[in-house]
Amino acid sequence: MSASNQREGGVANAEVVRLGLEGVVVAETQLSRIDGEAGRLVLRGRSLAELAGRVPFEEAVGLLWGCPVAGLREELGRARAAAFAGAGRLGDALARAEGMDALRAALGHGLGEGEPAPVEILGACAVYAAAWWRGQQGLEPVAPDPALGHAADLLRMIRGEAASAEEARALDAYLVTVIDHGLNASTFTARVVASTRSDRVSAVVAALGALKGPLHGGAPGPVLDMLDAVAARAAGGEPEPAAEAWLREELAAGRRVMGMGHRVYRVRDPRAAVLERAARELCAAGGGDAARLELAGAVERAASRVLAEHRPGRRLAANVEFYTAVLLEALGLDRRQFTPTFAVSRTAGWLAHVSEQLEGGRLLRPRARYVGPEPEHAA
Amino acid sequence: MSASNQREGGVANAEVVRLGLEGVVVAETQLSRIDGEAGRLVLRGRSLAELAGRVPFEEAVGLLWGCPVAGLREELGRARAAAFAGAGRLGDALARAEGMDALRAALGHGLGEGEPAPVEILGACAVYAAAWWRGQQGLEPVAPDPALGHAADLLRMIRGEAASAEEARALDAYLVTVIDHGLNASTFTARVVASTRSDRVSAVVAALGALKGPLHGGAPGPVLDMLDAVAARAAGGEPEPAAEAWLREELAAGRRVMGMGHRVYRVRDPRAAVLERAARELCAAGGGDAARLELAGAVERAASRVLAEHRPGRRLAANVEFYTAVLLEALGLDRRQFTPTFAVSRTAGWLAHVSEQLEGGRLLRPRARYVGPEPEHAA
Repeated sequence: MSASNQREGGVANAEVVRLGLEGVVVAETQLSRIDGEAGRLVLRGRSLAELAGRVPFEEAVGLLWGCPVAGLREELGRARAAAFAGAGRLGDALARAEGMDALRAALGHGLGEGEPAPVEILGACAVYAAAWWRGQQGLEPVAPDPALGHAADLLRMIRGEAASAEEARALDAYLVTVIDHGLNASTFTARVVASTRSDRVSAVVAALGALKGPLHGGAPGPVLDMLDAVAARAAGGEPEPAAEAWLREELAAGRRVMGMGHRVYRVRDPRAAVLERAARELCAAGGGDAARLELAGAVERAASRVLAEHRPGRRLAANVEFYTAVLLEALGLDRRQFTPTFAVSRTAGWLAHVSEQLEGGRLLRPRARYVGPEPEHAA
Repeated sequence: MSASNQREGGVANAEVVRLGLEGVVVAETQLSRIDGEAGRLVLRGRSLAELAGRVPFEEAVGLLWGCPVAGLREELGRARAAAFAGAGRLGDALARAEGMDALRAALGHGLGEGEPAPVEILGACAVYAAAWWRGQQGLEPVAPDPALGHAADLLRMIRGEAASAEEARALDAYLVTVIDHGLNASTFTARVVASTRSDRVSAVVAALGALKGPLHGGAPGPVLDMLDAVAARAAGGEPEPAAEAWLREELAAGRRVMGMGHRVYRVRDPRAAVLERAARELCAAGGGDAARLELAGAVERAASRVLAEHRPGRRLAANVEFYTAVLLEALGLDRRQFTPTFAVSRTAGWLAHVSEQLEGGRLLRPRARYVGPEPEHAA
């Protein structure tokens, strides 16, 4: 990597090699604006803070897709029913151990011939994510209820019983929060595939493959390990001093603290704020685990303080992964469901970017510089 | 697109927007060098002209993968057998009408748990491509013969009977010719997915989706329409004047001539040369259709002449698609098999790029510029 670092931004054979494409602007988008300095995320002209926890997932989808929200709830319901009805043709695609493998296999296969509409792809994603998890538990899949909202039905298909209105609202808050976030690697992948004028399923399947990668980010599971470790340390006592002691040991051992800080946000990740709010509202309504939420707050405060000493000059606060873990755990989801649940939402963002790319983009085709051997003799 | 064109390379809000990433170097590669001026393609230090038609596919794979060729033939044979044995779990993935959809669905699903080795992915691709085509004909799939070379066994699995040595050699020439070609859009897609440290299957499935796109190039089917039209016009007489007359009419009607010219090659596409040579060798050995090959040569000569008049200053010769169509047709493949057969070979190139990306690359994550509305009130 040191050779790469040298080369990035530098000149080699009169060519700049941009190994990470960092800072290179490859698209114009109306979908989301990340303001890292102000810690603000705007979705097509609306601040995340006024959407998450306030509107159902369907409204955020309509906002990004530029289509009327009226009817979208019913269309998504029909799409879930259609995906469930067609799941018999999938062989054992949904029996894969890894949720992202199951989603990739099922979405790449299950939607029949022709070009499925975006709503069909989005609806299928929730059905497959739920059916995969049921299968992992040795349970039969649960048929969707097309009359429900997407979040409520996803919880119902996972659990086999209806979720409360507060729980559905909390999952709506999560799905709205992670629906789009600029040109991350998976969204960029979807746009590259769409730039060839390939179909939407191909673009979404490709993006699922990128989202699966550990460098993509979005691995909130380890945050729960941290909370568990601090809870064990506190042993029923005050969590914040226990968190501080544990975190100092982690940093002294050279380990990273999970769920804190963000490459782009200089202040607190705005998604952490709305997810924390959703978790508090869920607790206030009697859902979730108030002690766990209190623990999470104590760990965030302690981590901010300890990290500020460890790396002065940079303020680190909880990021989206921190409160994703807290909120999805409060909803009873297993950590193995976290990335597939992320995909259930982000698929809507990918599809919006695909449409944008199809409208205004052009074939994304950069170059590589050949650094291999030359032939021994010209031929 | 005009706004895009203006913006490319220009400055908007002090940012250069590179909608196509044209000319941006995002990787260093040892795999292939395209010399557009000289009309030469080098695969890891060896000129295509000394490989195609001279070595089996396995040798080109070993060259790109940097692994010993000895044993690769047997490993590929075992991989084909394993993919065939596991096809029962695929549901109706291979019954998709579109070959690329079938490959995407089957590869994204069929290779079992864990991280399959590159050779397993490459072997499976041929099995699935053949089984898909058999299914389209209403025929049962044919089990692979692991003792055969990859090209010979692919023809055998497609036809249900052994191919001649000359036919296998001709298909080897094709597979070697298209195994890698710099950073086209599908190869770039594979590298973007790999840059997240996702798995190889995800990268290949993503690349298949990009290859499916009509802007990717690689649609040799229409070349056969052109040959058919000229043959009908010639009606048994001299093909070249008939071709010239037909081509003039096409250009006058504002239609594109297929299979001629290339964005990068200023002279004849070196892949056209080796594919033409392979077609001639197949004919000389009694395979293929000598009259069709003669027709193709007459059409290329007439098209070069007519296009030179039409667009003076630019010399246009046959490209890879032109002689892909001629050679694969001579081998009895249907045009619907052309892109899947391309993928059978290019998968080896994608996998080589994935390894390179995993070794030296970093997360490919460019930026988008937000051009959507601003929120009405700050939140």
